[in-house]
Amino acid sequence: MTDHPEKYWIGFDLGGTKMLAIAYDNDWRELGRRRRKTRGRDASDSGTARIISTIHRLLEESELDPKQIAGIGIGCPGPIDIEKGRILTTPNLGWDDVKVGDSLTKEFGCPVVVLNDVDAGVYGEYQFGVAKGARCVVGIFPGTGVGGGCVYEGNILHGAGVSCMEVGHTRISSSGRGSGIELLGTLEAEASRLSIAAEAAKAAYRGDAPRLKKECGTDLADIRSGALADSIEHDPAIRRLVEQAAETIGIGVINIVHILCPDTIVLGGGLVEAMEKLFVDTVTSTAQNGVMSVYKDRFKVVAAKLGDDAGAKGAAAWARRQLADQK
Amino acid sequence: MTDHPEKYWIGFDLGGTKMLAIAYDNDWRELGRRRRKTRGRDASDSGTARIISTIHRLLEESELDPKQIAGIGIGCPGPIDIEKGRILTTPNLGWDDVKVGDSLTKEFGCPVVVLNDVDAGVYGEYQFGVAKGARCVVGIFPGTGVGGGCVYEGNILHGAGVSCMEVGHTRISSSGRGSGIELLGTLEAEASRLSIAAEAAKAAYRGDAPRLKKECGTDLADIRSGALADSIEHDPAIRRLVEQAAETIGIGVINIVHILCPDTIVLGGGLVEAMEKLFVDTVTSTAQNGVMSVYKDRFKVVAAKLGDDAGAKGAAAWARRQLADQK
Amino acid sequence: MTDHPEKYWIGFDLGGTKMLAIAYDNDWRELGRRRRKTRGRDASDSGTARIISTIHRLLEESELDPKQIAGIGIGCPGPIDIEKGRILTTPNLGWDDVKVGDSLTKEFGCPVVVLNDVDAGVYGEYQFGVAKGARCVVGIFPGTGVGGGCVYEGNILHGAGVSCMEVGHTRISSSGRGSGIELLGTLEAEASRLSIAAEAAKAAYRGDAPRLKKECGTDLADIRSGALADSIEHDPAIRRLVEQAAETIGIGVINIVHILCPDTIVLGGGLVEAMEKLFVDTVTSTAQNGVMSVYKDRFKVVAAKLGDDAGAKGAAAWARRQLADQK
Amino acid sequence: MTDHPEKYWIGFDLGGTKMLAIAYDNDWRELGRRRRKTRGRDASDSGTARIISTIHRLLEESELDPKQIAGIGIGCPGPIDIEKGRILTTPNLGWDDVKVGDSLTKEFGCPVVVLNDVDAGVYGEYQFGVAKGARCVVGIFPGTGVGGGCVYEGNILHGAGVSCMEVGHTRISSSGRGSGIELLGTLEAEASRLSIAAEAAKAAYRGDAPRLKKECGTDLADIRSGALADSIEHDPAIRRLVEQAAETIGIGVINIVHILCPDTIVLGGGLVEAMEKLFVDTVTSTAQNGVMSVYKDRFKVVAAKLGDDAGAKGAAAWARRQLADQK
Repeated sequence: MTDHPEKYWIGFDLGGTKMLAIAYDNDWRELGRRRRKTRGRDASDSGTARIISTIHRLLEESELDPKQIAGIGIGCPGPIDIEKGRILTTPNLGWDDVKVGDSLTKEFGCPVVVLNDVDAGVYGEYQFGVAKGARCVVGIFPGTGVGGGCVYEGNILHGAGVSCMEVGHTRISSSGRGSGIELLGTLEAEASRLSIAAEAAKAAYRGDAPRLKKECGTDLADIRSGALADSIEHDPAIRRLVEQAAETIGIGVINIVHILCPDTIVLGGGLVEAMEKLFVDTVTSTAQNGVMSVYKDRFKVVAAKLGDDAGAKGAAAWARRQLADQK
Repeated sequence: MTDHPEKYWIGFDLGGTKMLAIAYDNDWRELGRRRRKTRGRDASDSGTARIISTIHRLLEESELDPKQIAGIGIGCPGPIDIEKGRILTTPNLGWDDVKVGDSLTKEFGCPVVVLNDVDAGVYGEYQFGVAKGARCVVGIFPGTGVGGGCVYEGNILHGAGVSCMEVGHTRISSSGRGSGIELLGTLEAEASRLSIAAEAAKAAYRGDAPRLKKECGTDLADIRSGALADSIEHDPAIRRLVEQAAETIGIGVINIVHILCPDTIVLGGGLVEAMEKLFVDTVTSTAQNGVMSVYKDRFKVVAAKLGDDAGAKGAAAWARRQLADQK
Repeated sequence: MTDHPEKYWIGFDLGGTKMLAIAYDNDWRELGRRRRKTRGRDASDSGTARIISTIHRLLEESELDPKQIAGIGIGCPGPIDIEKGRILTTPNLGWDDVKVGDSLTKEFGCPVVVLNDVDAGVYGEYQFGVAKGARCVVGIFPGTGVGGGCVYEGNILHGAGVSCMEVGHTRISSSGRGSGIELLGTLEAEASRLSIAAEAAKAAYRGDAPRLKKECGTDLADIRSGALADSIEHDPAIRRLVEQAAETIGIGVINIVHILCPDTIVLGGGLVEAMEKLFVDTVTSTAQNGVMSVYKDRFKVVAAKLGDDAGAKGAAAWARRQLADQK
Repeated sequence: MTDHPEKYWIGFDLGGTKMLAIAYDNDWRELGRRRRKTRGRDASDSGTARIISTIHRLLEESELDPKQIAGIGIGCPGPIDIEKGRILTTPNLGWDDVKVGDSLTKEFGCPVVVLNDVDAGVYGEYQFGVAKGARCVVGIFPGTGVGGGCVYEGNILHGAGVSCMEVGHTRISSSGRGSGIELLGTLEAEASRLSIAAEAAKAAYRGDAPRLKKECGTDLADIRSGALADSIEHDPAIRRLVEQAAETIGIGVINIVHILCPDTIVLGGGLVEAMEKLFVDTVTSTAQNGVMSVYKDRFKVVAAKLGDDAGAKGAAAWARRQLADQK
């Protein structure tokens, strides 16, 4: 058994491809971590079971006493019923109406705070990372979809009992392309990693991207961020596609600036990590040139810096903050 | 001299075509009002002078003692430097960098709060009108431009020292149409009254809108909200244009719901007043059908009900609220 | 009575605002001309009567014997039933199903050939003007609408008994703007003089085009080609609108090149005449940069050079050619 | 050696994935055929060698005397230099500037006519198939790209020495999607089988198309016409994508009708064959509803009926026709 007599916090990041659990003491020192594959399209029950067993393994490996958990914060994809701790729907994962909060509370007997995964990541960057001290920070994370999150004057911006900032599902073009919801021409339909991968696969198929064709073929599942980052050094057609996507995210930033006027925009996720300079530079220049003159230079675009930990750490920090508020 | 020994509040609404000043006692009973034309494209100085003389006339006519003013709240078009009480730029009025706050403070020797005019109107509806008690209310007011405002958990949503919610200047289409700023395909470029009027004038010119042609001709300055409301009863082509604009505003609402998840959307302004049912019904149906399923039925779309007074009353109420906070 | 014992030809150009009749001898020497206003939205009958009386006046003034008319060629707006000599519909003039051919034949007792007005103008440029000897020439004439015409291997390109080349009514964008027909986002909706005028009027109304505002106001009927040509020298916003329209016509040219691969593109009409260099340069550069590499440099873009006479002269020449074929 | 003392014709269809050679006697009776894989991205030389050896095998197997070839007609993808018998560029195959005509003439010592493959297919349908007797027939063949061809008054419509009707490369939307050339938003970028496959792969990846995911996975190379035809019976998301593409082709048809007013539109290729009713019905209804009223019912949309033979047979027939003209 552990020699940590104190309470500690669990932060959990449930992603589309992997899940990550980290334990933190009250000074945010890490006590242990456990990572596993998510297994997309598992039934949600087995998904919840997998979350629970991941936490158990973390506790065992780190010799932490389950009774000492102060609280669990878990960031989950898609819109979240934050009041009931429920995943509402995950267009890209296939989990609908999963009561994550109840399951974890029942299992671990501690308070559980469920929030949107990008909100968690942005809160992490706000508390510990690149957005420390921001009055208003908006995160945009292009991946399979395009996630968004916002911390406004210290709080995660949300609706009545529900997460929001689904910036990937806002319409920014007249395109007929969709992304799993009714609305077409959304930021996600135009600029997610999946959308880039699809256009890249077409270019490869047509013979316009020989490097990508050779390294990855034309299967979307194989055209990951790293492959794209490699290809843009050799295939001009792919470079153009990625730049075009970054410009489109720049348009999304313009819209966000005109609505919320954040001082900080954080770009994150594997795609941005793999091509950080291209994304930060392109988004900055598109956004600075496109916003109304009065908003120019009122915001900066930066890359996330906590990497994979942002979500778990942010979720834990938000849980602590929420539970403190409730007292 | 007045028999109101008490302090009172001045609310001022500076619009593109008219200005309105109203005096309120502490219980929001109206003590008097004065309305005048704004005279677009006057030099801003004479504009400020006009604001001041309008307030003086109000005080004289209502026999109010200038020394008893508790504070002035003034809603002005365009992005506002709320810290310095300055109009930053008004694409549609031609006032740039006008220090309204300083001028009024100097003249009347009382605290002055300057805010965006649509924020003022939305705050008015939140305090006294159709959005009373809303957790988050967003107002969309199509006119010469398309103004936006938001009250989030009791406060006007804004940036660091600057107003935001410039929803009219968010991009929602790939159209090449502009509206006075760099960014094309914005909500304002597609769905303002001015844009409707321009398309309507084209239809009239082509002979597709005989009623409008006969009643108004093809001058944008003459194709006002009332004329459009009349025309839609007789010219199917104009009805379609107006419906199309309302659908486009519905798209704007979808984006706002996905970002902020407000519980209440208030539509206001002369265009909506003139065709209230068409706008509320069309926007509601476009938005409810287009939002992600989890947001469906989490919001309602309603017409403003304070009419022309919303801005002045809201400005006064916000001024009082701000000054109370500062104590 | 005339001293021309020979037969002669009448060319007639029926435009939206003016009509022009010219008589030619067999060597295309002009024998006389008569011009009049068209009076848009007259009933078509009075329109036909007006055409007839215009020809009578021409004959009288030029002392030409009506019995010596070899044939009349008349170019009319909109799709034409070339078999029956009928105007089918004129979205911008209001003439539907008008039997021009029969009326003229009955009155003058000579063969009458009815064709589309832009076809007539392009045929004129092909026979006498800038497109002499072209294997395939396409004309694009932006005005109230955007007219098109094509001479392919010496013949006007047409459908079975009906004119075609309604290039203004092809869709080139996802815009929601219309132009009197079901289809939205057409070349005409985006780039006609009327569309430019509407956007220009908006800019004037907003205060972004002070020169235009001062010279013309905001009435579409007053914002003619000359006014636009004047304004672009002083109002950068208007220059941009006109350039944008020219670029859009360049897109239309790309489409035409990819479909028909003409060797000559003729731009004509009052708008092009008023700003010839801007249009020819912008359309050339947009088109040359946008066509597939194999079509680059296979075509040239030129301005029409016959001016107002192109339509009448082309109509007469086409009538002669058609009647010669029939023998 | 053969007992056909008469001359005979060779028709050759060079496709992206397969090549087909057929020999015909003067009454268009088939004398033999040979089919082989094309091997995309082979060097063009070996490609030409492969064409030649395919013809040799056909002759051997069918016991045809090479000296008796009256002429060879060969349809090749991409824009064709019809004067010099050269493939100019094949965005989707990687053959640039290949002198097919010279090579075949040198090898077989007979006249060779090189034409665009879709032109060949459309000419085949015009001479022997569904478009017999059409005054003007346009073919649209969606595959890896979207090919087009036109027979106008008995002749293949073409530019000066070069094929045209690259209808797939005309811009019909404001989308930012490309297809191997500069121009974005083209019919091919929006509605080719490859574009459908890319969007379908995204849906499969997101979990919105379980059947397709299960049967084909997410590799574009595996999502062929048959797979899509199967999937639309089970995956509503895929059905919608295919319908949307068919509607987009309908828009392309509207544009073609407004330009050329053909009486017959032939849809062909593997995608259309696999879902003939869906394509013919959707394209018909989109086009009939969208064309100007005067063009309504002046055209019919039909599926090709010669199948794989159209190209080879049409090429042979066109060669015969051309060579007859030259005498």
